[in-house]
Amino acid sequence: MSKTVTITGAAGQIGYQLAFRIASGQLLGANQKINLNLLEITPALNALKGVAMELEDCAFDTLEKISISDDPNEAFKDSDYAFLVGAKPRGPGMERSDLLQENAKIFSAQGKAINDNASRDIKVLVVGNPANTNALIAMSNAPDIDRDAFTAMMRLDHNRALAQLASKLNCHSSEITNMTIWGNHSTTQYPDVGNLKLKGKNTSSLLDKEWVKNKFIPRVQNRGAEIIKARGLSSAASAASAAIDHMKDWTLGTKIDDWVSMAIPSDGSYGISEGIIYSFPVTCQNSAYSIVQNLEIDAFSKESMKITEKELLDEKAAIQHLL
Amino acid sequence: MSKTVTITGAAGQIGYQLAFRIASGQLLGANQKINLNLLEITPALNALKGVAMELEDCAFDTLEKISISDDPNEAFKDSDYAFLVGAKPRGPGMERSDLLQENAKIFSAQGKAINDNASRDIKVLVVGNPANTNALIAMSNAPDIDRDAFTAMMRLDHNRALAQLASKLNCHSSEITNMTIWGNHSTTQYPDVGNLKLKGKNTSSLLDKEWVKNKFIPRVQNRGAEIIKARGLSSAASAASAAIDHMKDWTLGTKIDDWVSMAIPSDGSYGISEGIIYSFPVTCQNSAYSIVQNLEIDAFSKESMKITEKELLDEKAAIQHLL
Repeated sequence: MSKTVTITGAAGQIGYQLAFRIASGQLLGANQKINLNLLEITPALNALKGVAMELEDCAFDTLEKISISDDPNEAFKDSDYAFLVGAKPRGPGMERSDLLQENAKIFSAQGKAINDNASRDIKVLVVGNPANTNALIAMSNAPDIDRDAFTAMMRLDHNRALAQLASKLNCHSSEITNMTIWGNHSTTQYPDVGNLKLKGKNTSSLLDKEWVKNKFIPRVQNRGAEIIKARGLSSAASAASAAIDHMKDWTLGTKIDDWVSMAIPSDGSYGISEGIIYSFPVTCQNSAYSIVQNLEIDAFSKESMKITEKELLDEKAAIQHLL
Repeated sequence: MSKTVTITGAAGQIGYQLAFRIASGQLLGANQKINLNLLEITPALNALKGVAMELEDCAFDTLEKISISDDPNEAFKDSDYAFLVGAKPRGPGMERSDLLQENAKIFSAQGKAINDNASRDIKVLVVGNPANTNALIAMSNAPDIDRDAFTAMMRLDHNRALAQLASKLNCHSSEITNMTIWGNHSTTQYPDVGNLKLKGKNTSSLLDKEWVKNKFIPRVQNRGAEIIKARGLSSAASAASAAIDHMKDWTLGTKIDDWVSMAIPSDGSYGISEGIIYSFPVTCQNSAYSIVQNLEIDAFSKESMKITEKELLDEKAAIQHLL
């Protein structure tokens, strides 16, 4: 049986990376045929047609069917996996609250379309910013879908943290485990090394506290801006890669003795308010995630976790009327 | 042991696709660590730094080390696989002969750098246009490397042909085998369906001759322009995908009962002049390719193969002084 994967904003920079990596089998493996449903805004439909033509031209073994549309109801039809990448970027003179409102419209419409058309077992990953609150809006507009199906992407931040730590500890990123990003996918996020392990051994004591606080945390929080400065364009390939990591681990399971960071509907764990999409350390098994419990939280962590929680509560208040 | 993969023009559209798919393990599999050597022209080094940062941020298990440089001698150091993507595009008012000369300079310098620095078992794939003649120039400047190591990309044309045929025959592209593209990666290429099989059965008789001649062949020849018209940008993701297909099949072998199209140094097979890089049907085994012999060539095919051969001979004549 084919699986249907929806990508919104599919003609954009991230979508253009994501579509080909997914079509080539990197999400669900070489033996799972997939259908790609690509969504774009009407003015981008011609470019999207070009993307679809290039996807055909790859002659991927795993790609069964490609559909393109500007109608969310078509794009989410029978969708098993949805990558909500398309979002309105912040324009000149635009306030953050305007940005929230503009995106709220997009994600409430997409939430409704998911509710009305998607597989009941859909997994939704919001990549488009403000991702956590966009996910909240989509979730609130899809009352017939399990709330746990709505997540936002923190894996890019998680992977960025691993890369910085690998460089600092002079090891390969795959040797570092138990990293956590808490909170919002924004500069208030809290990259937490309190439980970090290197080759299975607790290593947080190896890290200089001042380096963590004054170099590492701000660098992970602001890595997006650093990339834009170098490339002249925002992170696209690394964002697409993290999106695949997120969805793949959610579906096929996380590594033993490790966890990943996913923004999910808060259930009140660690004293974080319910009703927001907040990033927690999670393990995945049998196509479901669960929050890693009973981690020790020191005073600095508690404070940092509250700052990013407050931002999410403020974002929620700004779009409360749409929930 | 890590393998070293060089990508030139790595901050360009194709390079940006290629680097991430290769780093994620799609060229040599999940168990082969690789080093990426990325080359760009000096003005693009800052953008290339951004690409390298994003590669780090992916925390790929298979990516060991990333080096960036504007010096071919550094970029080809110990290189096992080289993707020569960067090339000078045709500017306004530029004649084809100017284009050949400009690129000849780039590819003769890179050929020398390969000769002086690369692994003696390097595999070289030229993607940058005019790809076949660029490959010839690189080969001619690397006298200490086996000539068979120098190839140019026809796999994009090959895959495009499969996609068109799948659409026409209402089947999946993976069910079609024994397609051949002969000649030059240009509009003179000859897409040959004379030996085509659908699910293992000869199917060329199913195809209307007029459709093949007047629709299929021109469409494959001009697909690049069709993509540019839709996307507003030239094929990037599909070109990168074909480049991976080419190098992967060359290294790990082609499918049983099928062949692929690769532009390789002509050995005189099918009456094609030696001394040019011409696309033939090839099978690959034990990390080497060999031309499929004894295919029947009808009058139309013979004529078409000569037209594209002539273009390559003309290109060669234009840069003869550099060989």
